[in-house]
Amino acid sequence: MTKKAKVNAAILIIGNEILSGRTQDTNTSTLALWLNSIGVKIEEVRVIPDVEKIIIETLNSLRSTYDYIFTTGGIGPTHDDITAESVSKAFNIEYEIHKEAFKILEDYYKPGDFNEGRQKMAWMPKNAKLILNPTSGAPGFNVENVFCLPGVPSILKSMLGGLKNRIVGGKPILSHTISLRTVESEIANSLTQVQTKNKDVEIGSYPFFHAGKLGVSIVLRSEDQSKIDNCNLEILKFINEKKIEIVDR
Amino acid sequence: MTKKAKVNAAILIIGNEILSGRTQDTNTSTLALWLNSIGVKIEEVRVIPDVEKIIIETLNSLRSTYDYIFTTGGIGPTHDDITAESVSKAFNIEYEIHKEAFKILEDYYKPGDFNEGRQKMAWMPKNAKLILNPTSGAPGFNVENVFCLPGVPSILKSMLGGLKNRIVGGKPILSHTISLRTVESEIANSLTQVQTKNKDVEIGSYPFFHAGKLGVSIVLRSEDQSKIDNCNLEILKFINEKKIEIVDR
Repeated sequence: MTKKAKVNAAILIIGNEILSGRTQDTNTSTLALWLNSIGVKIEEVRVIPDVEKIIIETLNSLRSTYDYIFTTGGIGPTHDDITAESVSKAFNIEYEIHKEAFKILEDYYKPGDFNEGRQKMAWMPKNAKLILNPTSGAPGFNVENVFCLPGVPSILKSMLGGLKNRIVGGKPILSHTISLRTVESEIANSLTQVQTKNKDVEIGSYPFFHAGKLGVSIVLRSEDQSKIDNCNLEILKFINEKKIEIVDR
Repeated sequence: MTKKAKVNAAILIIGNEILSGRTQDTNTSTLALWLNSIGVKIEEVRVIPDVEKIIIETLNSLRSTYDYIFTTGGIGPTHDDITAESVSKAFNIEYEIHKEAFKILEDYYKPGDFNEGRQKMAWMPKNAKLILNPTSGAPGFNVENVFCLPGVPSILKSMLGGLKNRIVGGKPILSHTISLRTVESEIANSLTQVQTKNKDVEIGSYPFFHAGKLGVSIVLRSEDQSKIDNCNLEILKFINEKKIEIVDR
C-alpha cells in the first residue's frame, strides 16, 4: 500500500456482552490510542451482535469505506465465536483449517489437550495471515484490510506489537491538552473564535469532574505541530485575559 | 405506542473524544443495563465524530430501523456541540430557542450569569420534549423516537429516571450467569449441545482473568425465566460430570 497523507480505520466490536451492558468495552480506547500513534485515525466504531448475517453485512460495508478494519471478539472456541466463519463468507473465501495456526495450537497445548474445541480456533479464511498471540496461543488473522483480534483486552493488547509492520499509517495525529478550572460556557465564545480562525485544528472541549471540582479540558488535534502551537497561544491569551486557572489533569 | 413483545434500540455516541481513545465510553453499559431492565434490547451501537453530515445520515438510518435511538454527547455550550442542530436537520424541523428550556436555564443560573454560551443550550428542534437534568440544569430533549442525552456519564445517569415513563418496553430481558474455574475449550462442545437444544436462550461464553486465575462466565439470556432455568439445569449437569468448580464472580 502506498503511503497516504491520511489513513483511516473503523473498529467493529462483535459481542452480545457489550450490547447487553454486561461488559464495558475498553478495546476501542486501546486500539484508537495505538493507531493514532502510527498515523491511523479511527472514524467509526460499531458494536454488533454475534449474528452471522449482521457481521457479514457490516464488515462488507465498512471494509469498502475505510483503509483498515479491526474486529474484536468472536474468535474463541465456543459456539458463539463466529467471527472467522463470518469473515470467510464476507470475502467469499473458503473456511478451513489453517495449517500454521493448527501447528501453533498443537505445540501450545500439552499432548492430548488439543481437543476439538481448541481445534476450532485453527479454522480461518483460506490463506489468512496470522496475527501471533504471545499470551494464550490462539492467533488472530488478517485478510486484506481486515484484522481480526480477540475480545479479551489483555490478550488484544499483547498482539498489537506484532501488527505494527503490517499497518501503513499516515502522519501521526498529534494532540495537546489544556485543562482549566472553569466551566464550558465561560470559554465557549472565545473557543469558537479560535476554532473559526484555525479550521485545520480539531478543537474539542470536554467538561470533567475531578476531586470534587469542575473543570474543562481543551484538546487540540492536528498532524501539524506548528498549527497546534499557534492555536495553543491563542487559547492561552484568552485564558490569561479571563484570569482562568490552568490545572494539572 | 402499543406494547410490543420485543422492543429494540440503538445507541449513537457522538464524540471525537471516544474515537481518539482519549475518553473511554461508559454510557453504553449504563444505558444498556437500564434499558434491559425495562424491556428494551440494544441491538447496535455506533460511535461517530462531531460532523453534521455524518450525524444526520447515521441518525436517519438508525431511527427508521430501531424502536428507540439514544444519542449521547454534543449538547453542551461549545462550538463542537452540534447534536441539537443536527437532529433538527435530520427531522427537517426548525432549530430555535425552546422557551421552556430557556426558562429552566435562566432560573438555574444567577442573574447576569446566563450568557450567550449558556443560551446556546436552549436551542433545540421546535417542540422537542425536554428531558430534565437534575444535576447541571441543561436539559436533554426528545423528538419522536430519538432521545438526546449528554455525554458526561454522571449527568446522563441522573437523567434516566425522568425518561422511564416515555419508553414503552417489551418483556424485560432476564439473565443468569454461571462462573466456572475452567477454560472455554473444556466446555465448548457441551455448551454447543445445550445451545442447539435451547435455541430461544441466548448463551454467551466469556473468559475472564480474576485474581490471577482463569475462568469462564456463561451467561443465559431470555425473556422467559423457565427457559433459562431449563438451560441452567443442563449446564449444571455437564459441569458436575466434568467436575468443574463453580466460582463466585
